[in-house]
Amino acid sequence: MKNKLLPLLLLVGTLTVSAQETVLGFSKKASDEELKLEAAFEKELTASNLDDWMKLMAAEPHWVGTAYGEQNVKWMEKQFKSWGYDTRIDTYQVLFPYPKVRVLELTAPTKYSASLKAIPVEGDPYTEQGDKLLPSYNAFSTDGDVEADLVFVNYGIPSDYEELEKLGIDVKGKIVIAKYYGSWRGIKPKLAAEKGAIGCIIYSDPMDDGYFQGDVYPKGPFKNKTGVQRGSVMDMPLYPGDVLTPGYAATKDAKRLDRKDAPTITKIPVLPISYEDAQPLLEALEGPVAPEKWRGGLPITYHIGPGPAKVHLKLEFDWQLKPAHNLIATLKGSEFPDQWVVRGNHHDAWVHGASDPISGMVALMEEARVVAKLAKQGNKPKRTLVYCAWDAEEPGLIGSTEWVEDHMGELKQKAVAYVNTDGNSRGYLGVGGSHSLQAMVTQVANSVTDPQKGVSVVERRMAANSMRGGDSSFKLSALGSGSDYTPFIQHTGIASLNLGFGGEGSGGEYHTIYDTYTHYTRFKDPGFQYGVALANTAGRIVLRMANAEVLPFELTQWHSTVNGYLGEVMKTLEDMRSDVEKHNKLVKKDAYQLVMDPKKPVATAKMEAEIPYLDFSPLQNVMADLKTSIDTFSKINLTQLPAAKKAQLNKELMGMEQVLLQDKGLPRRDWFKHQIYAPGFYTGYGVKTLPGVREAIEQKEWKEAQEQIGVLATTLKNFDTEVQKLIGIAE
Amino acid sequence: MKNKLLPLLLLVGTLTVSAQETVLGFSKKASDEELKLEAAFEKELTASNLDDWMKLMAAEPHWVGTAYGEQNVKWMEKQFKSWGYDTRIDTYQVLFPYPKVRVLELTAPTKYSASLKAIPVEGDPYTEQGDKLLPSYNAFSTDGDVEADLVFVNYGIPSDYEELEKLGIDVKGKIVIAKYYGSWRGIKPKLAAEKGAIGCIIYSDPMDDGYFQGDVYPKGPFKNKTGVQRGSVMDMPLYPGDVLTPGYAATKDAKRLDRKDAPTITKIPVLPISYEDAQPLLEALEGPVAPEKWRGGLPITYHIGPGPAKVHLKLEFDWQLKPAHNLIATLKGSEFPDQWVVRGNHHDAWVHGASDPISGMVALMEEARVVAKLAKQGNKPKRTLVYCAWDAEEPGLIGSTEWVEDHMGELKQKAVAYVNTDGNSRGYLGVGGSHSLQAMVTQVANSVTDPQKGVSVVERRMAANSMRGGDSSFKLSALGSGSDYTPFIQHTGIASLNLGFGGEGSGGEYHTIYDTYTHYTRFKDPGFQYGVALANTAGRIVLRMANAEVLPFELTQWHSTVNGYLGEVMKTLEDMRSDVEKHNKLVKKDAYQLVMDPKKPVATAKMEAEIPYLDFSPLQNVMADLKTSIDTFSKINLTQLPAAKKAQLNKELMGMEQVLLQDKGLPRRDWFKHQIYAPGFYTGYGVKTLPGVREAIEQKEWKEAQEQIGVLATTLKNFDTEVQKLIGIAE
Repeated sequence: MKNKLLPLLLLVGTLTVSAQETVLGFSKKASDEELKLEAAFEKELTASNLDDWMKLMAAEPHWVGTAYGEQNVKWMEKQFKSWGYDTRIDTYQVLFPYPKVRVLELTAPTKYSASLKAIPVEGDPYTEQGDKLLPSYNAFSTDGDVEADLVFVNYGIPSDYEELEKLGIDVKGKIVIAKYYGSWRGIKPKLAAEKGAIGCIIYSDPMDDGYFQGDVYPKGPFKNKTGVQRGSVMDMPLYPGDVLTPGYAATKDAKRLDRKDAPTITKIPVLPISYEDAQPLLEALEGPVAPEKWRGGLPITYHIGPGPAKVHLKLEFDWQLKPAHNLIATLKGSEFPDQWVVRGNHHDAWVHGASDPISGMVALMEEARVVAKLAKQGNKPKRTLVYCAWDAEEPGLIGSTEWVEDHMGELKQKAVAYVNTDGNSRGYLGVGGSHSLQAMVTQVANSVTDPQKGVSVVERRMAANSMRGGDSSFKLSALGSGSDYTPFIQHTGIASLNLGFGGEGSGGEYHTIYDTYTHYTRFKDPGFQYGVALANTAGRIVLRMANAEVLPFELTQWHSTVNGYLGEVMKTLEDMRSDVEKHNKLVKKDAYQLVMDPKKPVATAKMEAEIPYLDFSPLQNVMADLKTSIDTFSKINLTQLPAAKKAQLNKELMGMEQVLLQDKGLPRRDWFKHQIYAPGFYTGYGVKTLPGVREAIEQKEWKEAQEQIGVLATTLKNFDTEVQKLIGIAE
Repeated sequence: MKNKLLPLLLLVGTLTVSAQETVLGFSKKASDEELKLEAAFEKELTASNLDDWMKLMAAEPHWVGTAYGEQNVKWMEKQFKSWGYDTRIDTYQVLFPYPKVRVLELTAPTKYSASLKAIPVEGDPYTEQGDKLLPSYNAFSTDGDVEADLVFVNYGIPSDYEELEKLGIDVKGKIVIAKYYGSWRGIKPKLAAEKGAIGCIIYSDPMDDGYFQGDVYPKGPFKNKTGVQRGSVMDMPLYPGDVLTPGYAATKDAKRLDRKDAPTITKIPVLPISYEDAQPLLEALEGPVAPEKWRGGLPITYHIGPGPAKVHLKLEFDWQLKPAHNLIATLKGSEFPDQWVVRGNHHDAWVHGASDPISGMVALMEEARVVAKLAKQGNKPKRTLVYCAWDAEEPGLIGSTEWVEDHMGELKQKAVAYVNTDGNSRGYLGVGGSHSLQAMVTQVANSVTDPQKGVSVVERRMAANSMRGGDSSFKLSALGSGSDYTPFIQHTGIASLNLGFGGEGSGGEYHTIYDTYTHYTRFKDPGFQYGVALANTAGRIVLRMANAEVLPFELTQWHSTVNGYLGEVMKTLEDMRSDVEKHNKLVKKDAYQLVMDPKKPVATAKMEAEIPYLDFSPLQNVMADLKTSIDTFSKINLTQLPAAKKAQLNKELMGMEQVLLQDKGLPRRDWFKHQIYAPGFYTGYGVKTLPGVREAIEQKEWKEAQEQIGVLATTLKNFDTEVQKLIGIAE
C-alpha cells in the first residue's frame, strides 16, 4: 500500500523541510539551493555500483598486511583519482600478530582437541578458500602455554565476578571460559587477568549467536556450530592504535616500546572458539549449576566448575610490523579550503568482510563519486572534503589512530567534523555522535526516505520507538568506541558522527569466514537499497557541513542531553546508596543465611560500606549558567550576520568540541581526553558519559569522584566561556 | 552457626506465642493447654515412619484400579484401625481410560517413529519394572486417528494464539505441538480444539523441564531426554470428578452419561511426549522462526510451521469403570462429634508417586498416628477428625469429588474445614486457602520451626520475601484447582486449606517413572525432615480447629484480601483500556506497518473496540459495609462469651464459607459455585479470584461482567448479613 504513495510522499517530505524550516546553518536562499543540490545528489546514487564494488573488494580475505588489502587500496585510489580527487596513501608500520600455534585441548576428565576450524558451506564459494582464510584468533592476545582447571564465568564482566564471589568461586590460577557479548571482548581477558586467571577462552553461545536466534548458515544467516568470531583484545580503553607507539604515529622510524612493555597486549593468552568446540569443555565442568541467566543454548547443563575439566591452551604469534595503508582522497573546498569535513570508513577486514567493513566502504565511495561528479558540474563544496579509507581498524583502530596522531596539529586547526561509517544492513537508521550535531542530523534524516516504507527514516524510527513507548524525537546515541571515530572525538576533540542502518539484517557472520558477498546479498541488504540510503544520509551530512554559511552546531539539544547525563550520574549514586542500604538491612536480618539452600552453599553476605553524599553543586551551577548562555545564543539569527562575523563564528564553532577535552585525560588513561564521552574502562565499546565522574562513582572511588566533579565543572566552565565568546561575536 | 542456637530459638518461638498472644479461638487457659498439647504432638513425630511407609507404598505403581493401589488402601486401613480410628472404605465406580494404542509418527518430510518410552536408569531399581509401569499418556484424551501438518504453538495458551493470529497462522485442520507449562495441561487440547486443530501433542521442553534446569536423572533430579509427564486432560474447569456422573456420586448404580456425551473428555486426541521424541518433529518444521520467548532449550532453531512436518497420531483407550477406593478414618470428637475437621491427601499415583502423593500421604498418616496416640492418653480432640485417603485424584480429583458429591448434605451440616496436602519437599512453607483462616495459619506457622535453619517457617519465608522486596507478612494464596480441596471449597463451600513445603526439592520427576523412593530420598527431602514439618504444621492446624472454643475464623484479613482482589479486577479493566488506546493510536499512526520487516510479514493490525466503563459501585459499597461490620465484630472478645453463645457462633461460623456460593454457579459451569475463588476457565489450575466478574472482563463480555458484578454484590451482601448475625449473637 505504502509503495503506491511513494512519489507523493517523497515530494511531501522534500517540501516539508523547505517550506517549514530552512536548513540549519543556511539562509533561506542558500537552503533552497542546498536542497536542490542534495536532491540531485540522491538521484545520482546507483545501487549497482555498491554491488559491483563489494563483489570485487570482498572477493578475497584482506586483513592488514595482505596483498589483497593493498590491491584494494590501490584500486580505490584509482577510482577516487578518476572522480577528481587528490589522493595519497599514508602508510604506517604497525605491530600485527599472526597466529602461528593454536592449541586448545581438554586434558581431563576426558580428552578433546578443539578443531578451531570453520567449515566451508555449500553455495558460498568464498568460504572454500582454505589457507587464504585467516585462522580464528584474538589479536593482541599474548603468547602463552598454560594448563589448568576450567571455570565458566558467563560473559566475564564485573557483575559475573561478583556472582562468583558470592558462590565462593575463585578463578586464581584457572583458565576461564566466557561467552561472547555482554561487553566488548577485550574486557574478558583483561578482567580475568585482574582476577588472577592464567588463560581465557571466549566462545559464541548458540543462545546469543547461533541456532537459538534463527537458521544457521547456509540455510539462514546465523552462526553455525563451527563459526568463530575473530577480533582484537588489545586494551583499547587504555589507548587504541599501534600498541608500540602510544600517542604518536607509528612511522617507519618512530621510537617503539619493547613488546613486553606494551600495556595494551593482554596479560594472559586468549582464544575464541566455536560452540562446537566449546560444548565438550563446558560439558566436562562440574561444581554449582550456573545461575539461570548464565545458561546458554547448548543441550547441556551449564556448570561453573572449577574443573574437573582441565584444559591446555597454547598460543604463539608471529609478531611482525606490517604496513597499514590509509587512502586519503581530498576535494579542495571552493571557499574555505582550510576547513575540512573528514569522512571515513575502514577497508581492512578479518576475512572477506563483505558486511564489515565493505558495505560501509562502498556506500562511502558511491557518495564520494557523486559528490565529485556534482562538483565537476559546478557544485563544488565550499569546504574541503577529506575521504579516508582506513587500514587496520580491526586489530584496534590502528590506521585511523596513527593517522590522527600523525596529523594532530593540522586536524585541530582545520577539521570541522568527522563522519564515520562501518558495516551497514537493512533496517533502521542509527546515529551516534556529538550532540551539538543532533539538530542537523535530525533535519537530514527527515529528508531521507526509507527504501522499504516510503516514509522518512526518522518516521520509521519513531514508529519503532512508539511501539516500545520510547523517545518521541530523533536522538543521537553517545559514542564510546568500536570504530574509527575514536581518535577523532575522544583523543582530538573533533565533533564526530557514526552512522549506519541495521536491525533487519541480523546474522552470525560478524568477523567469521561467513561474512561474504554471498551472505551479504542473501541476508543483509539484498539490492543494496540501504547502502544507497546510507550514502544518501552521510552524503547530505557532508554536503551540509561543507556548504553551511554558519556551521550547523546547535547547543540547546547538546545542553539538555548533557544535563540528562548529569541527572543519570546523580541517580546512579542514589541507586547505589539505596542498594547498599537494602543489602545491609538484609544482612542484619540474617536474610541471606535464612534463604540459602544448605545444599547450595554460598559465601556469607557481608555488610557493605555506606555510600557517601557527593557535592554535585559545581556541575549543577555551571549547567545552569550554560543554559542561560546557550538560550541567549540560540536566539540569534546567525545566517543573517555579515560574512566576516560568520567567518569568525565558524572559526570558533570548529574548535568548540576541543574545549570539552582535558589535556591530562581521564584518570589512568591520558590518551582519552574527552570529558563528556569515553568508552567504559570495564565495558570497552560501551560508552560512559561524563566518564571521569561516572566511573569514579561506579568504582566507589569517592575522593576521585569529587575531584572529577571539579575537573568536569572546569571543562564545562570553559565551554561556557566559549559560548560567551560566540555571543560576543554574534551580537 | 544457626544450629547451635536451635534449642534456644525453639524455646523463644514457643514462648513468643504463649506470652504475647493467646491462640486464636482459645481463652488464655485453653490456649496454654493447646500449646502444651501441640508441643507433645510435635515431640512424638518420627521421621523414620515416613521413610518406612513411603518405601512400602511407593514400591510399585498404584494408579486407580491397580491391585497395588487396593493393597495400599487396605494396609493404610489396618494402620488407622490400629491407632484407634473407625475406618471404612468408600468405593465408587469411575470411568478410567487405559492406553491400548499409542502411535506418533513423523510422516513427512522425513520419517520418525516416537519411542514413547522412558528408559530405566542405573541406581534406581524402581524404574526397571517394565510392563508394570503405566504407559505415558494423557487421561481423558479422546480416541483418535489423525494425520496433518504440524504447528508449534508455544504453550498453547490464549496469548499464544493471539501471536499466531498476528503472524497469520491458522491451526485449523492441523496438529499442534505445545510445550508443557504456561497453564494446566488440559487447557492446551481444549484451546487447540476450539481453534480447529485436530490433534495435540504436549512435550516437556528442556528449558522448562530438563537439562537447562540442572543435571538430569540419574545424575541429578531433572528430567532426562526420555522422561514423560503423564496427566489428566479432562476439562476440569467445567467440572472435576467422574466424567460420566457430573454433580452426583458415581455409585455402582448411578445413572451415567453416554461416554460420547461426556463434556469433559477432550474433543481431539492428545499425547504427551519426551523432548527426545519432540526434537525430530520440531526440527522438521519450517515457516517463521518462533518469537524469542517461545524458543526452548533444544539445539535447534524453533520454527512455527505449519509443516512441512506432517505427523500421524493414533490413540485408542480401554474405557473401563474402575473402583476408586477412598479410605475414611474417623476419630469421634469428645465434645462436638457433629463438627468435623476433614483432613485429606490422595493415595493414587501415576506410577510410583513417591513424591506425588506419597510424601504428603505419609506425613498425614504420621500426624494421624500421633493425634490418636495423644487422644488415647486423654487428649481427645473436641471435634471429630475425619482423615481421608483419596483414590483417583490423578485422573481428575475423582475419588474426593465423588465422595463429596455423595456426602454433600452431611458435609454442609457438619464440616468445619477441609485441610489438604499432596506432594511435599524441602524448602518453604506455602499455604493456599480460605482467607478467613489466614490469621490462624499464620499463628500456627509461627510456631513451626524450619528444620534447616532453626527459625520459624514464617521467618524463613519472610526472609525470602524481603530478598525479593515482597510481602512483609505471611499470606495465603487463593485456591484454584489441582488437588482434592476443589470439591470442598469450590463446589460445597467448606473453608479449605492446601499446604506443603517446597522450593528446594526441584526436579523433573513429576508424573514420570522417575518419581520413586530413590529419587525422593536423594533429592526431594532426604531424611524426611520436611515431611515431619508438614505433619507438624497440618497437625497443629487440625488440633486447633478441633479444640478451639470459638472456631478460629478471622474476617479482617479476609476483607483486606478480597478488597485487594476487587482493586485488581478494576485495574485489569483500566489496563485493558489503556492497552487498547495505545494499540489504536499505533494503528492510526500506521506504526505496525512501518515497523514490520517486509521479509517477515505479519497480519495487518486492526483497530480494537474501545473498553467500556463498568459500574463497580455495588461492590465498592458492599465492601465498605462489610468493613464496618467486620470491624465491629472483630472488636468483640469471643472466647469470653458464655458457652451457649459460643456454640451458636460456631454453628454460624461453620457455614460462613457456604454463603460465598451461588447455587447456580459460575456462567457456563454450574458445578463451580464459589464466587471468590475458582480455577480459571483458560488457566485450569491457576486461580481466578472474583471469577464471575474477572473472567467476563478478560473475555470482554461486558454485559455479563455487569451482571456478574450484581451477582457478586448480592453474594457479599449475604456475607454481610451473616456477619451482622454473628454480631447479634455475640453482643
